[in-house]
Amino acid sequence: MFKAFRKEREEGQSPPKVVILGGGYGGVYTCRALEKAARRGQIELSLVSRDNFFLFQPMLAEVVSGSIEPPHILNPIRRLCRATSFFQAEIEAVDMDDRNVIIRYPGHTGYRSISFDHLVIAVGSSIDLSALPGVAEHAFPFKTMGDALMLRDHVIGVLESAEVETDPDEKNELLNFVVVGGGYTGVEVAAEINEFVREAAKSYPHVNNEEIDVILLQGAGRILPELAEGLARFSHRLLVRRGIEIRLNTRIKSATAQSAILSDGTVIPTHTLVAAVGTAPNRLLDSLLCPKGPRGRLLVDDNLAVQACPEVWGVGDCAAIPDLRAGGTCPPTAQYALAEAKHVARNILATIKGEGLRPFSYRSLGVFVPLGRFSAAAEVLGFKLSGFLAWWLYRTYYLYQLPRLERKLRVVIDWTLQLIFRRDIVKMDVARSEGISRAHHEAGEIIFRQGELARSFYIILTGQVQVFRQENQRETPMATLGPGEYFGEMSLLRAVRHTASVRALTPTDLLIMSGTDFTALADSSTRFGELLAGVMRQREHANATLEASQSVDLESGEPSAPPPRSDRSEG
Amino acid sequence: MFKAFRKEREEGQSPPKVVILGGGYGGVYTCRALEKAARRGQIELSLVSRDNFFLFQPMLAEVVSGSIEPPHILNPIRRLCRATSFFQAEIEAVDMDDRNVIIRYPGHTGYRSISFDHLVIAVGSSIDLSALPGVAEHAFPFKTMGDALMLRDHVIGVLESAEVETDPDEKNELLNFVVVGGGYTGVEVAAEINEFVREAAKSYPHVNNEEIDVILLQGAGRILPELAEGLARFSHRLLVRRGIEIRLNTRIKSATAQSAILSDGTVIPTHTLVAAVGTAPNRLLDSLLCPKGPRGRLLVDDNLAVQACPEVWGVGDCAAIPDLRAGGTCPPTAQYALAEAKHVARNILATIKGEGLRPFSYRSLGVFVPLGRFSAAAEVLGFKLSGFLAWWLYRTYYLYQLPRLERKLRVVIDWTLQLIFRRDIVKMDVARSEGISRAHHEAGEIIFRQGELARSFYIILTGQVQVFRQENQRETPMATLGPGEYFGEMSLLRAVRHTASVRALTPTDLLIMSGTDFTALADSSTRFGELLAGVMRQREHANATLEASQSVDLESGEPSAPPPRSDRSEG
Repeated sequence: MFKAFRKEREEGQSPPKVVILGGGYGGVYTCRALEKAARRGQIELSLVSRDNFFLFQPMLAEVVSGSIEPPHILNPIRRLCRATSFFQAEIEAVDMDDRNVIIRYPGHTGYRSISFDHLVIAVGSSIDLSALPGVAEHAFPFKTMGDALMLRDHVIGVLESAEVETDPDEKNELLNFVVVGGGYTGVEVAAEINEFVREAAKSYPHVNNEEIDVILLQGAGRILPELAEGLARFSHRLLVRRGIEIRLNTRIKSATAQSAILSDGTVIPTHTLVAAVGTAPNRLLDSLLCPKGPRGRLLVDDNLAVQACPEVWGVGDCAAIPDLRAGGTCPPTAQYALAEAKHVARNILATIKGEGLRPFSYRSLGVFVPLGRFSAAAEVLGFKLSGFLAWWLYRTYYLYQLPRLERKLRVVIDWTLQLIFRRDIVKMDVARSEGISRAHHEAGEIIFRQGELARSFYIILTGQVQVFRQENQRETPMATLGPGEYFGEMSLLRAVRHTASVRALTPTDLLIMSGTDFTALADSSTRFGELLAGVMRQREHANATLEASQSVDLESGEPSAPPPRSDRSEG
Repeated sequence: MFKAFRKEREEGQSPPKVVILGGGYGGVYTCRALEKAARRGQIELSLVSRDNFFLFQPMLAEVVSGSIEPPHILNPIRRLCRATSFFQAEIEAVDMDDRNVIIRYPGHTGYRSISFDHLVIAVGSSIDLSALPGVAEHAFPFKTMGDALMLRDHVIGVLESAEVETDPDEKNELLNFVVVGGGYTGVEVAAEINEFVREAAKSYPHVNNEEIDVILLQGAGRILPELAEGLARFSHRLLVRRGIEIRLNTRIKSATAQSAILSDGTVIPTHTLVAAVGTAPNRLLDSLLCPKGPRGRLLVDDNLAVQACPEVWGVGDCAAIPDLRAGGTCPPTAQYALAEAKHVARNILATIKGEGLRPFSYRSLGVFVPLGRFSAAAEVLGFKLSGFLAWWLYRTYYLYQLPRLERKLRVVIDWTLQLIFRRDIVKMDVARSEGISRAHHEAGEIIFRQGELARSFYIILTGQVQVFRQENQRETPMATLGPGEYFGEMSLLRAVRHTASVRALTPTDLLIMSGTDFTALADSSTRFGELLAGVMRQREHANATLEASQSVDLESGEPSAPPPRSDRSEG
């Protein structure tokens, strides 16, 4: 079969294009399984992801406690998939009819389309906490490296505050740490926070171990429903012994900056609420015209092919994959995603070669739940393990899985040094950015171009700008704006592309508000919104008058390009 | 003498309080030199710094290229100074008459004062680029860990963009890297960027080495005025050979997001502009009623005592210290700060013991300028060295200086692994925060309290809040506000503390705009400001009417507390 391909290529036909969406377990491992075929020229391989790295999710919780340094579990995708064209971009839409993926580079306004013959959708899941008032605003989610780093910095900040707090109620509020969700992630995060806070507290003379409360809330009657009951009970006892308070049959109702409110009305005063609940489908899936399975996931068949979409495949957390061994659908774990990735790669190559497809059938090796220093619970190949042996197996297994020798070495060094030295308490909050920024433009510079996606609202501080339109290579000036005047709001409020360009006529200083902030304000139904609505009506009136006199409108009128989709995907 | 102190203590007198302001070289090393006396109970030692870590500045440039991992050159101050009371806080003001330092914890609204008998001012310098239009907005400063991390992430982002850019002009713009300032910092940063970009480009198939331009701008006739001319010439030749373009006698005039504009009118298209110029006095110094020396620095005498302020001392970059050996003032280098720190500690203890002071006289060991991989220029004890030997000495010297064995070990590991593996190209931009945030409050929760510092502007999305005043333990309700209404703007615009408290009457969702953003908008002289001014006038009118009828005003009136100082200091 391979010969047939080589022949085709020699005849000038380009090889089939395989495009992978998503840079998590599913996407990266599908890509790695296809790299050999790409190097041989049998396929053209592309991968699109929002980040330029692959996050090794199983070790993410260890970042919170500082057992592992953040960069060590991030692998640059370019180095993992060297025969692949890698695009660090947002996925804006998938056009199933024309077989195109529309992407946008971060910070850029133009779109680009990538055509595919085979498409692998591995965009993962996202988190939706909107059903619980205040939880999305005040709880820390736990999914990305950013989440882990922010949580770590926050916990150190809380210790710094508690150290100098004189009011006992306030201090109690600071030293309560609440984790919602008693599944794998929740248990792991609670264990890491517990260990880190209790050890770090030794450097804070006014924070006593007895004042620290780490509370784990679980809606079900026991923690770790992923594990057999005996192991879950072992884990429960171990966590309690280490100082974690576990509340079973307890759900959260709402949250504020100072408290978690439970469904029975209990209020737990806390500044640190971690939400390890609320998995939701990735928003890209909404826009796909494919049948959806349970919980909004892509419906795929036994061969991992998306139903009703030929040559489109689904792997990982975003797909509802029938579990042929255990029944139901495959669990959303790294282990399954890895097996699915290898399988889908095989089936794609089989399709290309005209061979038959094989159904996906995988038997889990087991489950590991790390419970903090030197202890874990595990079910491996049917055996139940707990304590040090389980912990040692867990570390060895994941270290083996971590891609690239350099990263393995660095993680081993981290673990070794962690045995010798105390945990780090550096609070490295480096982001001090404001939502409103300033920009300087020299005369003649373009601020934005007609047809670009609207992203910001601009207020002129000094200088003059010209609004103009381009049609058939001809420039038509529309207006000149000066200090105190603003622009960009029309396209933002209507979520369309800019219908005119703006350039600086003189050296110009601008105040720039992000589109997200601007629309949040405009939607707040305060007088700020009214003001804007008034201005919009005025400008529209002026435009209507202009258009009636055969002129063109200013920064408004009918959108000349389709509105941007709100269904951006996670990479 | 020590016995005398012990005696005093036994008699119940508390030991003299030494307070150190600043967590850089000057502050931390003064503190370490005084720790022994603190452990013996001879003094009470406190240190105030904005960050909870000490940044080892000499290795900061190596973070840009990934030679060293960021946390490894950050040392938690609590671990460096264990006998010290450490305050992670902003320094708001120093009251020389009452001998108090006023601090504020980050994220907190209350103030706290720390009294002192001896005060060491070691707040360092800051960067002021306001004289160059657009440079403050678009250039990367290079002083803090945040600066280094942002620059690194930006450079990787530029490579990602260049990889997919098809327009040759845009690609050129992306692959031009401009560093302003040919002194020590500028040369080091240019060398590190040059090395990193050229090596990382190997992972970007569409970025060629020849397309990369690293340009160093120096206003004077040669680079490295800190070094002897021969060594500077050696460095110049080496940097040019490694691919850096050096433009002497060239100054920057202004900058935009896409270009650096030179004083002769030349425009260099670039997305990466690093400003290693513009050192300015720390803003805390403005508020101190002490005589100032050249360039706004604290005027101190030979003994490092601040003139006209008894028992106040100055060390490091914020002080103009007479250089008794070379004449003029001591250079603002880590080496001098370290020597000054040790000296001031000795003089403080001598004052406490009633002994005589010694004048500060230090002979520099030499200067090291790292020039990238395996090369440096150095003047050590009068000897001029260049190339590998200088580089080896430089690494050995600074490794020896880096505090704590654990950190030394980690840096050695970083350096070793860097010899074996390629440089990391993970782009870890984790900050995706918006300037406008949301908050949820349950009924009865206080949103802010009367007397607290005003920090935000609030818009009510859902729910109701009550504005009330407290006087003599009595609560007077002022107003009830509902959806679409807003509050907090009066205190922000006048920069006073809140003159009323606000609590949620029902579960309430708020939109919160930071005070910085809000005042930027209000100052932009757009209609947004007019709107607010109008609202302010209306409310004031209503207040005047209320006050005339013997009532109190709503969220305004005379400030009941002093206005917050604008002179916050860097730690």
